[in-house]
Order: sequence, then C-alpha cells, then structure tokens
Amino acid sequence: MDRTKEQARRLADSLASRGVSFDDAVESLTKLQIEMPSWAVGDSGTRYGTFRERGSARTIWDKIDDVAEIQRVCGICGAMAMHIAWDKTDDGQYLPVKRYANERGLALGTMHPDGFTKQEYIYGSIATPIGAVREASILHYKECVRVARELGIKAIGMWVPDGTNYAGQDDLRARKHRLTDGMRALYDALDDDMQLFLEYKPFEPYFYSTDVFDWGMSLLTCTKLGPRAKVLVDLGHHLSGVNIEQIVAVLMDEDRLGAFHFNNRKYADDDLIVGSVNPFELFLILNEIVAGQAAGLSPGVTYMLDQSHNIEPSIEGILFSVMNVHAAYAKALAVDRAALAEAQGNLDVVGAHRILKDAFETDIAPLLAAAREQMGLPGADPLSAYRDGGYAQKIADERNFGGMGTLGG
Amino acid sequence: MDRTKEQARRLADSLASRGVSFDDAVESLTKLQIEMPSWAVGDSGTRYGTFRERGSARTIWDKIDDVAEIQRVCGICGAMAMHIAWDKTDDGQYLPVKRYANERGLALGTMHPDGFTKQEYIYGSIATPIGAVREASILHYKECVRVARELGIKAIGMWVPDGTNYAGQDDLRARKHRLTDGMRALYDALDDDMQLFLEYKPFEPYFYSTDVFDWGMSLLTCTKLGPRAKVLVDLGHHLSGVNIEQIVAVLMDEDRLGAFHFNNRKYADDDLIVGSVNPFELFLILNEIVAGQAAGLSPGVTYMLDQSHNIEPSIEGILFSVMNVHAAYAKALAVDRAALAEAQGNLDVVGAHRILKDAFETDIAPLLAAAREQMGLPGADPLSAYRDGGYAQKIADERNFGGMGTLGG
Amino acid sequence: MDRTKEQARRLADSLASRGVSFDDAVESLTKLQIEMPSWAVGDSGTRYGTFRERGSARTIWDKIDDVAEIQRVCGICGAMAMHIAWDKTDDGQYLPVKRYANERGLALGTMHPDGFTKQEYIYGSIATPIGAVREASILHYKECVRVARELGIKAIGMWVPDGTNYAGQDDLRARKHRLTDGMRALYDALDDDMQLFLEYKPFEPYFYSTDVFDWGMSLLTCTKLGPRAKVLVDLGHHLSGVNIEQIVAVLMDEDRLGAFHFNNRKYADDDLIVGSVNPFELFLILNEIVAGQAAGLSPGVTYMLDQSHNIEPSIEGILFSVMNVHAAYAKALAVDRAALAEAQGNLDVVGAHRILKDAFETDIAPLLAAAREQMGLPGADPLSAYRDGGYAQKIADERNFGGMGTLGG
Amino acid sequence: MDRTKEQARRLADSLASRGVSFDDAVESLTKLQIEMPSWAVGDSGTRYGTFRERGSARTIWDKIDDVAEIQRVCGICGAMAMHIAWDKTDDGQYLPVKRYANERGLALGTMHPDGFTKQEYIYGSIATPIGAVREASILHYKECVRVARELGIKAIGMWVPDGTNYAGQDDLRARKHRLTDGMRALYDALDDDMQLFLEYKPFEPYFYSTDVFDWGMSLLTCTKLGPRAKVLVDLGHHLSGVNIEQIVAVLMDEDRLGAFHFNNRKYADDDLIVGSVNPFELFLILNEIVAGQAAGLSPGVTYMLDQSHNIEPSIEGILFSVMNVHAAYAKALAVDRAALAEAQGNLDVVGAHRILKDAFETDIAPLLAAAREQMGLPGADPLSAYRDGGYAQKIADERNFGGMGTLGG
Repeated sequence: MDRTKEQARRLADSLASRGVSFDDAVESLTKLQIEMPSWAVGDSGTRYGTFRERGSARTIWDKIDDVAEIQRVCGICGAMAMHIAWDKTDDGQYLPVKRYANERGLALGTMHPDGFTKQEYIYGSIATPIGAVREASILHYKECVRVARELGIKAIGMWVPDGTNYAGQDDLRARKHRLTDGMRALYDALDDDMQLFLEYKPFEPYFYSTDVFDWGMSLLTCTKLGPRAKVLVDLGHHLSGVNIEQIVAVLMDEDRLGAFHFNNRKYADDDLIVGSVNPFELFLILNEIVAGQAAGLSPGVTYMLDQSHNIEPSIEGILFSVMNVHAAYAKALAVDRAALAEAQGNLDVVGAHRILKDAFETDIAPLLAAAREQMGLPGADPLSAYRDGGYAQKIADERNFGGMGTLGG
Repeated sequence: MDRTKEQARRLADSLASRGVSFDDAVESLTKLQIEMPSWAVGDSGTRYGTFRERGSARTIWDKIDDVAEIQRVCGICGAMAMHIAWDKTDDGQYLPVKRYANERGLALGTMHPDGFTKQEYIYGSIATPIGAVREASILHYKECVRVARELGIKAIGMWVPDGTNYAGQDDLRARKHRLTDGMRALYDALDDDMQLFLEYKPFEPYFYSTDVFDWGMSLLTCTKLGPRAKVLVDLGHHLSGVNIEQIVAVLMDEDRLGAFHFNNRKYADDDLIVGSVNPFELFLILNEIVAGQAAGLSPGVTYMLDQSHNIEPSIEGILFSVMNVHAAYAKALAVDRAALAEAQGNLDVVGAHRILKDAFETDIAPLLAAAREQMGLPGADPLSAYRDGGYAQKIADERNFGGMGTLGG
Repeated sequence: MDRTKEQARRLADSLASRGVSFDDAVESLTKLQIEMPSWAVGDSGTRYGTFRERGSARTIWDKIDDVAEIQRVCGICGAMAMHIAWDKTDDGQYLPVKRYANERGLALGTMHPDGFTKQEYIYGSIATPIGAVREASILHYKECVRVARELGIKAIGMWVPDGTNYAGQDDLRARKHRLTDGMRALYDALDDDMQLFLEYKPFEPYFYSTDVFDWGMSLLTCTKLGPRAKVLVDLGHHLSGVNIEQIVAVLMDEDRLGAFHFNNRKYADDDLIVGSVNPFELFLILNEIVAGQAAGLSPGVTYMLDQSHNIEPSIEGILFSVMNVHAAYAKALAVDRAALAEAQGNLDVVGAHRILKDAFETDIAPLLAAAREQMGLPGADPLSAYRDGGYAQKIADERNFGGMGTLGG
Repeated sequence: MDRTKEQARRLADSLASRGVSFDDAVESLTKLQIEMPSWAVGDSGTRYGTFRERGSARTIWDKIDDVAEIQRVCGICGAMAMHIAWDKTDDGQYLPVKRYANERGLALGTMHPDGFTKQEYIYGSIATPIGAVREASILHYKECVRVARELGIKAIGMWVPDGTNYAGQDDLRARKHRLTDGMRALYDALDDDMQLFLEYKPFEPYFYSTDVFDWGMSLLTCTKLGPRAKVLVDLGHHLSGVNIEQIVAVLMDEDRLGAFHFNNRKYADDDLIVGSVNPFELFLILNEIVAGQAAGLSPGVTYMLDQSHNIEPSIEGILFSVMNVHAAYAKALAVDRAALAEAQGNLDVVGAHRILKDAFETDIAPLLAAAREQMGLPGADPLSAYRDGGYAQKIADERNFGGMGTLGG
C-alpha cells in the first residue's frame, strides 16, 4: 500500500473511533460551496490607495474567467456572488453576464445591492434623512430583485453601509425607522422563494454610529420583516473580543442564520485571508455549524468570501482562503460529537475542550486529498495547481496593469 | 442682585433661547432617582484582594445608615436596591430591613437575585449543565419574587453571571435553552405589576462565553418572555467601541429599556466612578433618554449605581458619581431640541453636533443649585456637604476596620 | 458693567483662587499654534470612496487660501504643514508655494515626506525588502531635507507607513534594522537646527504588523538616532484603552515629545474632529503638557491637525477642531495645580480627581473671548465668523466640484 | 515496522526536506523548561470569589508535591517559580522549602517579590506617594535578593502592580521617577550573576493608569538600570490587537527579552490555558524565539506558566497548557527557514505565509512522542498519564477541600 493510501486508512480508523465516517466526511467536503464575489478578483486597497496588480481583472468578463479558474482548481467555488452596480455589461445588461458565467461552468450566487458608490449616499442610503435618496434606494432594491429574478438568483445580500460620524448628526431612532421601512420595502418585493440576508458592521465607512451595527440589530430588523429575512455574518465585522461562534449558535437556534462573508481581522475590518489570524476561531465557527446542522438547524447556509487582497495576488489570496475554510471544515467534521457530549455531561472541562482541540489538530490532509480526487481536481492543492497551471502568466501578459489600482509609480 | 441669582437668571435666559424652561429643568432634576445598591457601600476590590476602608459598613444596618446619609446630601437617592443573598438579618428576615430603611426615610428598590456566591455555581447558575442547580436557581428566583412581594418591590434585576471558560466546555445552544427556560420560570412567577430587568455582560466571571453576552441576547430573551421583561444596561458591560447611546435609543424605540447600572470602564468591567472616563458619553446616553422620554418612550426607566470603590472612600466615590449623573442629566435637559432637529434636517453635520456639544459645555451649576435648594439639601454640593457633616469621622470611629476587606497588613 | 465683562471678572476671580492669572492664561491662549496640514482642506474619504465637496481645494494655491481663511477666523493657525509629494507647483517648485503662503500671512510648518503614494511602496518604503526602493526612499528623505532647508522649515514629520499583512510575509527583525538604518540616514542628513518627529501607528495600511507600531518603538528608534529625534503622537494611532496622557507624560519626562497630530478615534484611525469622541481625554492630554511645561519640560511641542472630513465641509470640521483644542487648552490652564498637588499628597483620591474635573467643567468662554479680542479676531467664535464671512459661498462658486472626490453620482 | 515508527519516519523525512533534523528537534523538545509557579496549583478565582477544588494544595509542601507530579508526567517542568510572600514555612524559613523541592527532584526557579498582598499597598507599592511604603518595598526587594542568594536563585521576576484609578489621583511623572528609583535599588542589590525581569501590564488591579503599562515602559526602565534588566512578557498583559510576536522580535533584537508568563486572554487578563484562545498566535511567538535563537539571540529566555484555573482542576489545566506550549514549540521547530527566507526574498506573500501555516499544520505528535520516550515519561501524553496515575484521587482524599477557595455552598 502506498503512503497516501496508508495515511488515509489510518485517518479513517481514527475518525471511525470518533464515530465519523471518512467517506461521509469526504462527501460533505465535496458539497461545500463558497461563493466567489465578483469584486474579490479585481484590485482592492485602503483609503491610502490601491496597488495595481499585473493581470488584475479589468472587466466583468475577466472576473468570470478568474472565478472559473478558481473553480477549476478548488472545485467548491462554482458560483459567483454579484454586485449590482458593477457586474453588468457596459450597456447595463445582466443576461450576457449570466450566459458567459454558465458557459464557464459557473452559477450566479447572491445578489448584492449598492449603497455607497454614489455621491448622493453621503449621509447614507436607506437611512439618510434625504427622502429622495431613500426613494431611489428602494427603487434600486426593486431593480435588484427584478434582475435577480431574471438571473434566477434566490438571495439578496444586503449591506446597509449607512451611519453617522458625529453625535447629534442625525436622530438615531429616526434612522432606525427609515432602515426598517426600507428593508420592509425590499423584503416585500422579494419573490416567495427568495431570501434576504442582512449584514451588520460596527463601523466604517462611518465612525460614530452604524445603522445595522451588530447581530442583534440585524436580527431585530429581520424579525420585523418575516421568516425569509436572515442574518449575514461577516467575520471581520465585529469588535475585538466578540465570540462569533456563539452568535452563530444563537442565530442557528433561532433559524436566522442566512449567510457568511469569510475573511479575517486583527484590528478593524481588515479583510485579510480567512484563517490567517486565528484559524482556531474559524474552526470553532464551522464546528457550531456542523453541530447545528447535525441537529437539523440551518441546512442552507450560504458561504461567500469577502476579502481585500491589497498586496498579494488576488487569486492566490482567494485560493489560500478557500483552502483554509476547506481545512477548517474538515476538522469540524472530525469532532467526536458523542465523546464531546459525554465530557460535557461529566463536567469534564479540560476533557471536553481537548476533544475540540484534538479535532483541530487532526491531520486532515487525506480527507482533502480524497475530496479533490472525487471531484477530479488537478494538483496537490488549489494553490499548487494554480501556480502550475500557467493562468497567472497568461493574465499578466494579456491584461497587464489594466485593473483599478489608483497609485502611480 | 447677588452673584448666584444673577448667574441663574443668565442661565435661564440662555435656556429659554433654547426652548428650555429653567424651572421645568429644575423640576426634572429633583425628580431623578438613582437607586443605591446595598453592596456599594461596603468594601470591594479586585481578584488580588480587597482593601479595608476604615468606617466601611459591617452589616445591613450600617449599609442603610450609609444610604440614608447619601440621600441626606444628594436628595435623589431615596431607594436602596437589594441583593437577596446579602440584605437580610442574620436570621434571614427581610421585613426588619424594610422597616429600618423606611425609618431612615428610604424605600427599597430593585431586587437582585444571586447566581454566583455559592460553590455550586461553578459551571453557572441557571445555564449550568447540572439539573439540580438549575432547579435550585428557579426556587431561589421564586423566593426572590416572594420576598419582593413581601417588601413591596416591583422589579427584579437579573444578572445571570453564567458562562464558560473554554471552547467545547459546554453546548452553547443547550445553555441558551436552559437560560430561556429559567428566565421564563422567573417571569411567570412575577406578579402582574412586577418587571424583570435582564442584564447583559460580555465577559467575567467567565472568559470564553457568557450566556447573556450583549443587548441583543438580552432583548431576544426578553421578547420570548413578555412585555414586562426589559433590558438592563450596565455601562461597564460593553466591549471597547460599542456605541451605548445607540443601544439605548434602539431599546427605547422597542419599549424594552428597563434599567441602568451606572459606572465607567476604560478597559474591562472596571466599575469606576461614572463620568470619570468619558463624561461626554454619559451625557450622550442621558441625552437619548431625555429625547426619547420627550417623545413619550420609556417613561419609567430605573437608574442604579453599580460600582466598585476599591481605593477611594466608598461614600465619597458614590457621591461624586451621583453628582456626575446629575450634572450630565442637567446638560441633557439643556439641549436645544428644536434647533437640533432643524440642523439635522438641514444636513448641517457640524452645526447639529455643535448643538449637543454646546449643551454639554453649558455651565449648569445654577440648575443644580436650584434643585438642591428646592429639595432643601445642605451645602454647596453632595461631596462638600458630606465632608462637612462629620459622618465619615463618626463611622470611622464606630466601625473601625469592620468591613469585608481581605488584605492583611 | 456689561454681561461679558462681568462674566470675565467672575472667571478671573475664580481662576485667581486657583492660583491662575486670567491675563496669563489669555496670553497662553494667543500663543498656541496649531499647524494646518495642507492635505486637510481637500476632499478625503474611506476605502469605499471619497465624497466630493463643493468648494473643495483643487490646487496648492486653493489650499493656502483655505488655510489663510482658517487663520483669519482662528488666529492660532498661522502655519501650514507640508507634504512633499503634494505641495508643490505643477512643475515641481516649492519656493512659489512659500512665497504665496507668506503673502497670505502664513508660515510653512512641518515637512512630511512620502511613503505610500507610489506603486513601488507595495511592500513598504524604507522597511521594504526591495533594496532599490529603500535607496529611493533615502534619496527622497534627503530631498525633503533639502527642500525644508530651502523653505526654512525646521522639522521633518516622518510617518513610516510600512508593515506587513500576513505572518511570515517578511522577517520582522530585518525590517526593524532596515527601518533604523533608514531613519539614521534621514537624521544624519538633517541640519543641526532641524528636528525629526517619528510617528507611530498600530495598523493601517497594513494589518498584521506595522514597523513603527507604538510609542515604545518610536522612542527606541529615536534614542538610537540622537537628541533631535522625537516622538510624534497622533491621537488616533492607539489601540482601544491606551492611556495617551500617560504616554505624553513619559515622553516629556524623557525629553522626547516632539509633536502631535490631533484628531479623534472611536474604533480605528477614524480621523474624526478632535474632541468629538472624548473631550475629557483631550483635556487630560493637554493637562499633562501644561503641567510638564510648567515644570520646564518640552517647551517646544509642535501641534498639528490631521483629520479626514469625509462628510462635513472640511473647513467647518477644521474650525470646530481648533475650537475644541483651544477650549481644552484653556481648561488645562485653569487647573489649580497647588491644590492638586496637595490633594495628591493627602492621598485624597476623589478630591484630586475632582480638581481636574472642576477645571474641565469650568466655563472658559470668557478666556477664549479675551484671547480672540487680543488677537483682533472677528465674530464670536471661528465657526460663526466663518459662516458669516461668505468664504464658503465664494469657493463653492469658484471651485464647484473641482476637488479629488472619487465617487460618481 | 509498527505504525508509530512508520509515522515518525515519515515526519522525519518531511522535516528533513525542510532542513530540520528530527533528532535535533527531539533534543530541543527535551531541553525546553517551563517553570511552574507555586501559586498556580492552589485555588484561584475572580473578584466574585474562588471556587474550592477538592484536592487543592493547602501548603507549600502540597504545592511542591503537585509540581513534582506535574514534572513526573511532563518532564519539562523541573523548576518551581517562587513567590516570596507565600512560599515559605510557617515560621518564615525558605531553606526547608528548597530542600523538600530538591528531594522531590525539583529546582527552584524565578523569585517573585510581592507588591499587592498588604493593606499598605492601596496606592501602590514602589510608586506609591507614601515614602514609608516605598522604603519598605525596597527593603522587601533586598530581602528577596538575599533569599534568592540563599536558595541559589538567579532571577527576580518583578511585577510592579501599581497604578491609579482616576485621572489626577497622582502625578504620573512623579510615579515614573519613584518606579525607576525603586527598580534601580533592586537592580543594584542584585549579585552580578542575577537578572531582573520586569513585567508589564496595561490594567488591573488599577484601571486608569498602570506604572509599567507596556513593553515600551518596561524596556525604557530596564535600559536605565543595566544589561541584566530584561523585559518579562506575560501573554495576557496586552490590549486587544497587540502583535505580541513583533514585541518578542524587537526585544530579542535589543537583547532585552528576559522571560515569559504563559497564559491566554480573550478579553482582559483572563489567565486561561495558554493556547486555548489562539494557538496560532502561540506558535508565531515561539517561532520568533526559535528564529531569533537560531540567529544567536536571547539564548537563555526563561519560560513560566502564570494562569488561573478557576473552574477546571488546576493540575489538569496546567498539564494541558504545558502540552500546548510543547506542541507549539515543536511546530516552531518544524518551520522550513531556508524556504521561508527565500519566499520572503522573492516577495512571495502567500508563499511565505503558507510556509508558517504549513509548519503550524504539521502533525508533530511523533516528535512529542519521541521526546517523551527519550525523557522516559509515562503514558501517551501528560494529561493521560496524570489521569491514569491516581494522583488526583490521592490528593482529593488526603486534602479534601483544604484549599483557599472563598465561596460557600
């Protein structure tokens, strides 16, 4: 027996002793789906400027090509999340975008309305004091739903980027009412098979108050709307110290966990590669999902990446992120849940904690390898397959510095 | 006209120009009530130990005497919040406590059940995995309601100090269910004219998860219980950066703001003198309350102090805290609300912010002086009146180092 | 006697009782100087985009005009801090800039080299692994010194915006050596009457490590350079909880406090109006400076504003900031230092704290009014004088939306 | 070949490909030494009380027995760090303590003076305004040095727990001078072969200012003292967001890294099991040490555990902590340093980061197993060996609830 098979067999034995089937875990790993946002594969930066990457996507067609390449090496990234302001043809069409994506083997994922790319949003979009801007926002939401319907998209991912910069600038309760009214208009426009995911964020681009500032505010608003309004958890949208996995557990228990934006933060909304700051936290979050789904909760959570690859090549940053999520998910699948429940019941604090830690420390490479094999993917891992595949050189040559970077030099 | 009257007249003119009546403001200032928790006037400290203060309260009778002295010089502290584990006679009676408090001119305020003073609470009180401890907690809650009924107390202030220290130690969703069930048992035991205030806290005494970790979790739980379950906001129970006044605005708008525990934090739950770290934030919080109450919201918010006077004489720390709240409340009353609304409507960011800042900068000493005069209080301010009154010397002589300090030396 | 004089006399009496001369305080208030950075008066924004303000400065000449207007109404903003990449004529000349500034009554203040506006700075400027970029940075520093010499500028304000985004990306000790070597090259290029101010910042534009990440790293580097290298404290460049006034006290004691960048943060480096988040903290910082300078320390601290007026009119935001600093400085001058020292000596915790709080609560409007009168300034305060002066309308008409905003709409 | 040997061989191959010798790594793992503080094995808790653990150490003899048991199963915990106020016989003798420790196979480690266990320390120990307390503190330091000399201890671990709770309470610069003078008195009392480790902490037990508040303040003070004064890094003593591994890198580069107190924080100074919150951060810290020591820096860093096992059995919490450090150290040894340097040189951001991540993900169980075998240790790992060894039952029976817990019930 060769090494790889021997390792896989050994891991299968170890998992079996934890009540986990190797084959079932592989199956789960092949079924994971992480939507790629179209905006992740272009240049992105900080308020100080955006470095231009050679080969960066110039058009929506480039973006689709990039996501297709990502899917080629990852196998679990078969849908592209859309941003309505950016992801259309130059003459404002969406169907050609869908057709090209489908041709490249991609589905279209969550639709994200816009609330920040225009001058008129200076005091907010739907929570602004300016009635005309609120009305335009609602029209925009309805247009998003219409386009989603046209494209067969079943979820709207709503980030309300509104807030204020100074105490007194606006009436906080009035803003809350405007927000709720606007979200209700959006929700009411949805088809019966569509969902609304409402994102929260504590600060940025405003720095005194944010209208949907935390999970509690998002949940409160969703509850007012109806059962298809759910919370979107962006890992970077928390203040230091927040226990994200507990929020996930609470939302699942309330049947209000809708979607994730994966990334990592060390300070603010840093939008770093997910798993690069605290991979154990990522594991704990996925562990709550795996545990909750095993109990029948939130079967249809939507995963997306939402990061900002300021200095690393975007596609490489994305691939490493997908690898980190895939690995953390595999580890979450490797938890011995019966033993965990028993240790918890026995009040064995260190023992119970250790069971999670042991799963986190498990070498799950054979699981990932088997999943890759089952999906017929090239190479040892996505990053290696990408680096070996020549795509980076190809786009560098073709696109040169055609992206959206703003810095000179 | 003497200086003081001249200053009062000048302030009255200034307030009138803002649409604020000096006399109404004075009336509001005399009606403010801040409950004094019985536990604030004894020794308190950190996990490293408790310094003993000469004159510190030794018994519940001493505590009542101290609160009576506080009320003598403050005039707005006429009720003592109770902790059921501590505030009884040595043979477990409560009525004599009430009688003595009434004799000293004090009412009894919010009743606080216990969840942390016993060995059995090691894994939590109502959210513990141990069924017998949960049952005992519910019995304890019912006993609290019975005692409250006996004492004529109309509110239960519930801090659930439960949580876990390590990932995996317990099932987070199971804990949520235990918490909800326990709170429902307490709520159902209440008389129809009683309220439940549910406190939240992000960490301490547990450091991985807390079962009621933020306002969202408290609100979610309250919503499951009924309309008389409301959120208790402790100023120190927030992570760095949280916009507390916005939470207050949201809770008022939802008719779920129940009560406050006043104190200040710079780092963790520091329990410092309220107003000592960021007096502008205290003003902004009270500003939301004044604005909301002017709109008819949350007319009956309960205020309490909940601090830890580790090194300063407890009574002095309390008096300065009451002064800070009183002053911040006076400033909140001094906001020109019509001008503020107009500036907000005009999108005048700096102008609107400045209106709050101007109210904050207003020299409201004449308002406080008039309120003191109307209440017939001694001295220029509570702290001076106390220092001049001889009480500190009296208790130092009588009680010596009889308090609960733990440190030697 | 009219009201204003009466109020001034009353404050003078109050100050006298604290050992503070009204006239001396006024004198100090007229001598305060806050440099205006040229980049503050143009459009600024977040990574999501920059709103365009009507009337925003289009050119260096516009910027000088704006600062001259600020100085017209403030009287303490007579110098413009320079950024070498931006503040020159289109054909790269600096002397015409100086001449025009001088004509408008302005001096030139601190010179800020560049380290982030070019593509080549992707991995850092002076701490980058790329030798050629480091060499170019040193040449740029030397050019800055040359230009400073030409313009008569005596201080270089150095923000090294370098860092890394991922653990392992670079060797942290190697970066430290590159940083030190680069700063030494800059220091050694200085004339004997020039100072280097080294800024620190914990994160942004990089989010894993920053090469000059806190005051300790700045001080350590300065110490290696020589006595004219000093620390620059930007109020927004601290993690939550940092006691900034203590850092100021330590740096003064070490004779290493060089300069300030004023602004306020609630979350990250929010660059809000200074004094808008916690005006008491601003007072405490200035209090340390006043106390230290009374003891002969750091007589020549340089003050600058460094903010980002994303939504409010830039000039209004600046004027309100200057007003906040002026007021906080007046309050710091109003501290009864003898009483404070006595209370501290008596271990009177509440009493000593109250002395600071009383100074903070002092209505110092008469001091500011007298200082304005002495400086011959128009109007009741800078903001009113500006709003009454017609300048905003003038630049709105002349410049329209000619600034650097990036958002459409 | 059996499984274990096969796994070891496979890991050895993998390590060899990274330029790491399996045998050298094992050797390094056997040489790691983590001092056990005597105070870790007794009951500990929060300000709300201390739960009593059955079997908790009652006396210094019990503590030595516990550390001996820890060493029996860990093999790398052969020294007990001392606290001078606690670790003596009832009649104040230290030599019998040393003798008993030596009999049990233990050395004595770092000596920790006291600054917080007495009433007189209310305003601080060495930085207090009270001259007599400062003098007593210095006498105490000298006594510590004398006892250290008597016991053959070569390092003093100094935590100055001083600070203030309110702005204005004391003069911050005066406190800095008192601190420096006191540390100088201690340093000057040291023998030439003794070191001083100066700890820093941002808050607690004081909550406005701390006299040695961060690494910069500790380093500044050490620099004033002399080359044998070094910084002690306690992992829990940082504000949220601080990059600890960068501080370690800086201190090593300055030859000022003295010692570590291991533990973990999520919020404040939580004193949780090290590695339980962010094991990747622990790895990154040890990675800096391994890298620095490979470059000849800081060869003699001292490691200690300093935790608070509030709810888990203390010895179990300690054993799991030692296992976490040992594992993280093994992973740090497994970094391919040549490949890392090459990737850094190639500006390969994702590649360089991945090399660290790959080392972190390495299954280093065979390394730990080999180290255990070489040290002749029982069982599969420390925790299992302890649970199988019967010691817990033995001390539970012998000691019952004899520890220092404060809670009733």
